[in-house]
Amino acid sequence: MSTILETIESPADVKKLSIAELTTLAEEIRERLIVGVSKTGGHIGPNLGVVELTIAMHYCFDTPTDSFVFDVSHQAYVHKLLTGREKLFHTIRQPGGLNGFMLRTESVHDSFGAGHAGTALSAALGMAVGRDMAGGSEHIVALAGDAAFTNGVSFEALNNIAAQTKRMIVVLNDNAWSIDKNVGAIAEYFHKLTANPTYLNLHDRAAGLLERFGGKAARHVARRAEEAAKGIVGRGMLFEEFGISYYGPIDGHNLPLLIETFNFLKTLDRPVVLHAITQKGRGFQPALDKQKKFHGLGPYNPETGETTAAGQKTYSEIFAESLTRLADRNDKVVAITGAMPNGTALDLFRPHHPDRYFDVGIAEEHAVIFAAGLATKGFKPYCAIYSTFLQRAYDMIIHDVCLQNLPVVFCMDRGGLSGDDGPTHHGLFDISYLRCVPNIIHMVPKDEDELADMMYTAMLHEGPSAIRYPRGTGPASVVKDQPVALPIGKAEVLKDGSDVAILALGGMMGEGKRLQTMLEAEGLSVALINPRFAKPIDRENAELYGRRCGLLITLEDHVLAGGYGSAVLETVSELELSTPVVRVGWPDDFIEHGKPEALRAKYGLTAEGAMEKAALYVRSIVESRLSVR
Amino acid sequence: MSTILETIESPADVKKLSIAELTTLAEEIRERLIVGVSKTGGHIGPNLGVVELTIAMHYCFDTPTDSFVFDVSHQAYVHKLLTGREKLFHTIRQPGGLNGFMLRTESVHDSFGAGHAGTALSAALGMAVGRDMAGGSEHIVALAGDAAFTNGVSFEALNNIAAQTKRMIVVLNDNAWSIDKNVGAIAEYFHKLTANPTYLNLHDRAAGLLERFGGKAARHVARRAEEAAKGIVGRGMLFEEFGISYYGPIDGHNLPLLIETFNFLKTLDRPVVLHAITQKGRGFQPALDKQKKFHGLGPYNPETGETTAAGQKTYSEIFAESLTRLADRNDKVVAITGAMPNGTALDLFRPHHPDRYFDVGIAEEHAVIFAAGLATKGFKPYCAIYSTFLQRAYDMIIHDVCLQNLPVVFCMDRGGLSGDDGPTHHGLFDISYLRCVPNIIHMVPKDEDELADMMYTAMLHEGPSAIRYPRGTGPASVVKDQPVALPIGKAEVLKDGSDVAILALGGMMGEGKRLQTMLEAEGLSVALINPRFAKPIDRENAELYGRRCGLLITLEDHVLAGGYGSAVLETVSELELSTPVVRVGWPDDFIEHGKPEALRAKYGLTAEGAMEKAALYVRSIVESRLSVR
Repeated sequence: MSTILETIESPADVKKLSIAELTTLAEEIRERLIVGVSKTGGHIGPNLGVVELTIAMHYCFDTPTDSFVFDVSHQAYVHKLLTGREKLFHTIRQPGGLNGFMLRTESVHDSFGAGHAGTALSAALGMAVGRDMAGGSEHIVALAGDAAFTNGVSFEALNNIAAQTKRMIVVLNDNAWSIDKNVGAIAEYFHKLTANPTYLNLHDRAAGLLERFGGKAARHVARRAEEAAKGIVGRGMLFEEFGISYYGPIDGHNLPLLIETFNFLKTLDRPVVLHAITQKGRGFQPALDKQKKFHGLGPYNPETGETTAAGQKTYSEIFAESLTRLADRNDKVVAITGAMPNGTALDLFRPHHPDRYFDVGIAEEHAVIFAAGLATKGFKPYCAIYSTFLQRAYDMIIHDVCLQNLPVVFCMDRGGLSGDDGPTHHGLFDISYLRCVPNIIHMVPKDEDELADMMYTAMLHEGPSAIRYPRGTGPASVVKDQPVALPIGKAEVLKDGSDVAILALGGMMGEGKRLQTMLEAEGLSVALINPRFAKPIDRENAELYGRRCGLLITLEDHVLAGGYGSAVLETVSELELSTPVVRVGWPDDFIEHGKPEALRAKYGLTAEGAMEKAALYVRSIVESRLSVR
Repeated sequence: MSTILETIESPADVKKLSIAELTTLAEEIRERLIVGVSKTGGHIGPNLGVVELTIAMHYCFDTPTDSFVFDVSHQAYVHKLLTGREKLFHTIRQPGGLNGFMLRTESVHDSFGAGHAGTALSAALGMAVGRDMAGGSEHIVALAGDAAFTNGVSFEALNNIAAQTKRMIVVLNDNAWSIDKNVGAIAEYFHKLTANPTYLNLHDRAAGLLERFGGKAARHVARRAEEAAKGIVGRGMLFEEFGISYYGPIDGHNLPLLIETFNFLKTLDRPVVLHAITQKGRGFQPALDKQKKFHGLGPYNPETGETTAAGQKTYSEIFAESLTRLADRNDKVVAITGAMPNGTALDLFRPHHPDRYFDVGIAEEHAVIFAAGLATKGFKPYCAIYSTFLQRAYDMIIHDVCLQNLPVVFCMDRGGLSGDDGPTHHGLFDISYLRCVPNIIHMVPKDEDELADMMYTAMLHEGPSAIRYPRGTGPASVVKDQPVALPIGKAEVLKDGSDVAILALGGMMGEGKRLQTMLEAEGLSVALINPRFAKPIDRENAELYGRRCGLLITLEDHVLAGGYGSAVLETVSELELSTPVVRVGWPDDFIEHGKPEALRAKYGLTAEGAMEKAALYVRSIVESRLSVR
């Protein structure tokens, strides 16, 4: 017997269903999500929370004519299931499979991609204004979590919406969580709105009536609900003060209520916010019990929610442990996260130094200026922000931190290819965008122990610094009890050599060693260098090996344009040397999602790739060697 | 007879004055500002608006123990006059003189520098939290204009303030303007608050009493005012909803009222906002008549406000005229500014196409996502944002525009050294931070006509593009009636040659020509190339001249690290050529304010500087030439 879900080829099929069938569909989708994601890994919690919301949206609106913009868009799995991608759903986040986020190139129903938070209202407003200018009548619906409102750009959009369009629907998907429990005044404000008896009555009544009378009661219930919802307009003063009509809060799992509400909101000629209360992880007890863990994770047991026991410590964990030890001894050390205590592992730091732990919400700009303010008072703030998210605070790094030469430390987790999440999450630009900024130093550890040393070095350094480390685990080096301070701008020579020098940055050291073996097999004398610093470049080292060797090869988990190898090229050029530099790194393209190892092989970020790129020079050195002998 | 102002050596001297003397001091400061800035140029309007506010702040607080954080800080002239810099005030914005903004290295009273808007609340919160952790008792006062609240980061800060400190004072300096008239819901909201009779009465009463009874009445008036102010707490619901107590609005020019209010606010153990209404340009009729013009400008007649008649058209004006012409013929062309219609010259575009002109407030992040949204609907948005301010939207350029390959055009005014404004405003990083981003093209015109061609080229280009042009005027080329489309990634060879090739980017073409003459005087055959594109680099051209010539020299008004020359180096390296590349550009330091020409000479961004840097190679080429002959 085929399920209803299997019959949904497009959103048009959703519209043919009765309320009872929609309810069954919701159940089927939950089951599909829980089992499917248990194999692929992914953002299970957020998607379980928006099952009814997404069904109701597709029931009431017509994509791709109408546009849905999902903030951060990791909650788009249900949308994918309803827009012709059900048969491919088992491939989500798998190499060559569906992307884990909205992707314009994947489906016409994905009108706007996102992997960073806070962008939905601005994008939707752009679409709405475009529609108005073109004289169109389609609907633009933005779905944004409550956490999106801890991000400033949502307010920049709110400031413009009422002045610029008369038709746009914002669905506030309020589950009181982003990845961790939300913090700050906005979270409290939303909580205050939902703690109102009107809402609770509305919810209970609807549920009760539905239970008693089934689908037939839906219309009646919905009308009552709509009236009640309209009756409490004016309570969402925050939105009203921005000129946007506020409706709600309503139960985001009540399908008939949602459907009637959307059908009502469609008729309005003013921008509106619908405040829907949802439950993250709904229908899957392990996800309800452990909201943080089940926000997004790898494969798990679909019955119990168990995951395979954590093995080797990740770089994130080493970072957090190292920071905790520094803070134990130095009361000026503080930690800052932008709503990522779990991802950055700062939740390991927090219990040890709760007073020096700051979660500022999804607010990277504020995080960095806040850190700068703390630094003026003699503190040493460590901002743990993924490489890709630090792009959000680029101006603050330049204007507030580096220009004032304040000793803020940027700990860039997920520096390099992030893997399954894809191009929205790869951290492939930070060397290029930071090394042009005066005053900052940029460090990349070859292993866990060196990360701890760099954390310590940053503490002692009197200006701004950045440390980038990759997602996941490293080579499992033993972290010393006492970190040592690294000399600023000095590379580490792991092995001397005179024909070719390999400069393998950070996580590329493994490939660097393989490359060394390959080159040695050609009879060459090979130097292996751990650069440690992408900025400043070790000029002395560059000069030494630039003069001694016939070739320098740089390896980096970063784009080639303006990256580490480019900095080496600049240095060699400034030294007026003519030694060729072969640079291995990511090409000038956005890299798809996939397994890092496979993608590295595909794009030549391997010893083999380096051999191929350097072939001409290697051959000529080998030949000159032979002729000498 | 010496003035009171001349007796102020530090804020301690302000505290010795009577209310009547403070009033005289305010008059003297206004006179000093009007006359002083008439010679140096600068932000006259904003400073005339905060005379009393700044005096009252220094009367009630004790910097540098207490900290003042001025948002954007172009309104810090009065603060500079009261903190020991009166005798240097004639040097403001002059080479080697005072900076036009707060600068930590200039005075201990400047606790936080700024030149970009919206950062004050975050920085002040960092200081407040630092103070709390250190057990200090000093006051932290942030002064932010109403326009700062069109910027998202202010809201990120608001979201965190109440949760993180019990003592912090925010002064909302509300003059209803940023540089242009403020836009959006927040401006309307502030207007609503100030349109309240309570405020007007308060203001009139205070003024009337003061007039009748002089200084003696001040205390009484102030107490009454304070009570009234407290009475209307709760009206500023927007702030109250963020957990911050709202006081006001009060008259920001009423010294006794301000003093009593600050003294009262100092006693509170909760974060507060004081809403002060001020008049931009107060006391100088020309500035009141033309708020926009007198926000910030060059020298003017201190009696009449007249400025020397505009001569040659600026790049900004050429940009706006060009965009207007494109929009005349293509109804998909739209213009977006972040509160800079005057600076970007989009106020010339606006009357022609009011429906396709969008001022979104000081909200660069929103501006770029909004543009991306418009692009999905088939529009061609031109975002006119200064190079330095575009840093604010870096993540959006990557994540929302380039990753989705949407045809948004970034028109980066003030690309290159900005001159008098100094390091907060120089646009020296955009090539480095953009050329690592896939899909975008980056163009730099050599003159006005080429700017128009690039505007047209960007319109036809189906992906994202950026155009950078410098502040002020160019070489005054005649702009053709019909722009032509430039081939993407193709350089223009102005003169062929076989010994040295000069690649002079954009505004450096003047120096490039001088360099050509100098090299030709050495008997060399010199090619002169207008690169046009910083990305993509013209590989064919690089290969041709890399093989033909013994030296390439790049000139750019940009940092060397990762800049245009670096891109040429990468290309030459990828072509496996060994031709040396000498790169001329800004060093790895923040460049001070000053006259661009003088700074270029100081840092070697000249033909002479290039000759010096290239000396070794030039000598060797000359010698090899001689030996051939």
